[in-house]
Amino acid sequence: MTLRFTKGHGTQNDFVLVADTRGDLELTPDQVRRLADRRAGIGGDGVIRLAPTAAVARAGEEVADRVLAEEPAAIWFMDYRNADGSVAQMCGNGVRVFTAFAEQLGLADLDDGQELALGTRAGVRRVRKEADGWYAVDMGPWFLPGGEAAASRGADAAVLVHGWDAPRPALSVDLGNPHTVVALAQASELADADLTRAPEVDPLPPEGTNVELVVPLAETTDPDGRAVGHVRMRVHERGVGETQSCGTGACAAALAVRTWAAAGSDGPVPDVWDVEVPGGLVRVRLLESGHVELAGPAELVFSGETDL
Amino acid sequence: MTLRFTKGHGTQNDFVLVADTRGDLELTPDQVRRLADRRAGIGGDGVIRLAPTAAVARAGEEVADRVLAEEPAAIWFMDYRNADGSVAQMCGNGVRVFTAFAEQLGLADLDDGQELALGTRAGVRRVRKEADGWYAVDMGPWFLPGGEAAASRGADAAVLVHGWDAPRPALSVDLGNPHTVVALAQASELADADLTRAPEVDPLPPEGTNVELVVPLAETTDPDGRAVGHVRMRVHERGVGETQSCGTGACAAALAVRTWAAAGSDGPVPDVWDVEVPGGLVRVRLLESGHVELAGPAELVFSGETDL
Repeated sequence: MTLRFTKGHGTQNDFVLVADTRGDLELTPDQVRRLADRRAGIGGDGVIRLAPTAAVARAGEEVADRVLAEEPAAIWFMDYRNADGSVAQMCGNGVRVFTAFAEQLGLADLDDGQELALGTRAGVRRVRKEADGWYAVDMGPWFLPGGEAAASRGADAAVLVHGWDAPRPALSVDLGNPHTVVALAQASELADADLTRAPEVDPLPPEGTNVELVVPLAETTDPDGRAVGHVRMRVHERGVGETQSCGTGACAAALAVRTWAAAGSDGPVPDVWDVEVPGGLVRVRLLESGHVELAGPAELVFSGETDL
Repeated sequence: MTLRFTKGHGTQNDFVLVADTRGDLELTPDQVRRLADRRAGIGGDGVIRLAPTAAVARAGEEVADRVLAEEPAAIWFMDYRNADGSVAQMCGNGVRVFTAFAEQLGLADLDDGQELALGTRAGVRRVRKEADGWYAVDMGPWFLPGGEAAASRGADAAVLVHGWDAPRPALSVDLGNPHTVVALAQASELADADLTRAPEVDPLPPEGTNVELVVPLAETTDPDGRAVGHVRMRVHERGVGETQSCGTGACAAALAVRTWAAAGSDGPVPDVWDVEVPGGLVRVRLLESGHVELAGPAELVFSGETDL
């Protein structure tokens, strides 16, 4: 079978994209692994199939029924598979690249200010396009598992990175998946940290956690005079290792630094944060809804055909 | 500029292939780096431009003049670039994939038993196709830098791999580039060896060396009753690290094991060796000319277009 595909990435988190507008393409785990293979295949962190949400529902995935019940306009579904062939719930960088792909296919047009609602295994996601061409995704609600006590103390856990003399205080942030954020004083400390091994987290959440090392940088103001926070980060994703970018991790990093800023100041703290990840720059915004929004670039690099 | 390309690999050594049949495509080091980028580009160990040898000569590369003087039929040149943008002399796995690409383009047809002569920065290379679809490349002459003394003693150097208690004896083999081969007794030792750091070699050749760890396996016979040697290997390429496959390294491994077999036996030793590399299987053959030939698969995985 000849398969037409597009390759894209968001801050170096990269995907093989396949348009299945009729919803009749079944990708086996073995096919996904072959597509994602960086040497013998096309290569990517994951494979994204764009399919009709109704077809995903017909194939037996109940979440697709719930998506359509909540938002009938979410006619396209992001069927995300990890490079190892397993099924994944959601991917923040993937949603942006999926949206650029839908635009390329003529299935969506966000240039006129419209938003795209799409189905994912984590539910409906809404995307809008910013003036600079970046895509902004409503990532949903977030909370601090340690509550007010952790917010005022600034920590509810300790993290030991391989090579450090002692554990450092850390703040847990939940974005549907667990994160543990550690502040470092200097950019050189961040650059030197050894993330080739999983950091030790105490207490470790039952299903593990993603660890973000962050360095708060100086605030700036945007053209409208509003304060913009800045953070540089690296991330160790549970079960994966260090990655170039993690969408929920960038949100967790901004939310933790904002919590620390609020605890240490009587004044206002920024609601907009530029977050430098190893693979590029993203922007995190706190919405009035209480949700958090992640904005960033999406690049479609090439299209081609392969035999599957 | 929209660039049409093909992606291919030989035993997981992978390349971005570009057909420049008019010879007017100038690839800058930055463009090569972007094409070879595994996340933001297409991804590969190298970029191969197929261009007329005459055009390469016109562009000022004197080796292309020498190629045409030696073999006027070598009308196509393999312009090999490393992923870092630098120019490379030759690549044994790359020659096979280049040949499959030339066949796909209709510029060569080896199915009728004809050979392809092509230009490289290391001179003319000749390729033929075997009955099983593998490509066999004449890799040219080889020698033991340690000479007869090293051949009878079986060693002229010592190698210490990180984690070993003591250095082990090793044999130097030259294939136009330097190799140092170490025999291990057991497959488990090979699997467990730590090649994340460069092994220490004593004496270290002035320009460094590639290190092969090999396990000799049991001989078999081919359908014609001739003995076939077997070797399993891993390789640490100088300046690169461990790779899935190294064409000259596979030749060096077979030649070293053959040398040890000859020193320890009065009988004949095989002239054909199957070599298991991490990325697959290749075959090394000693030719009557004194040259060594490397045969293996070449896979063209996909074709596409990208903006450069």
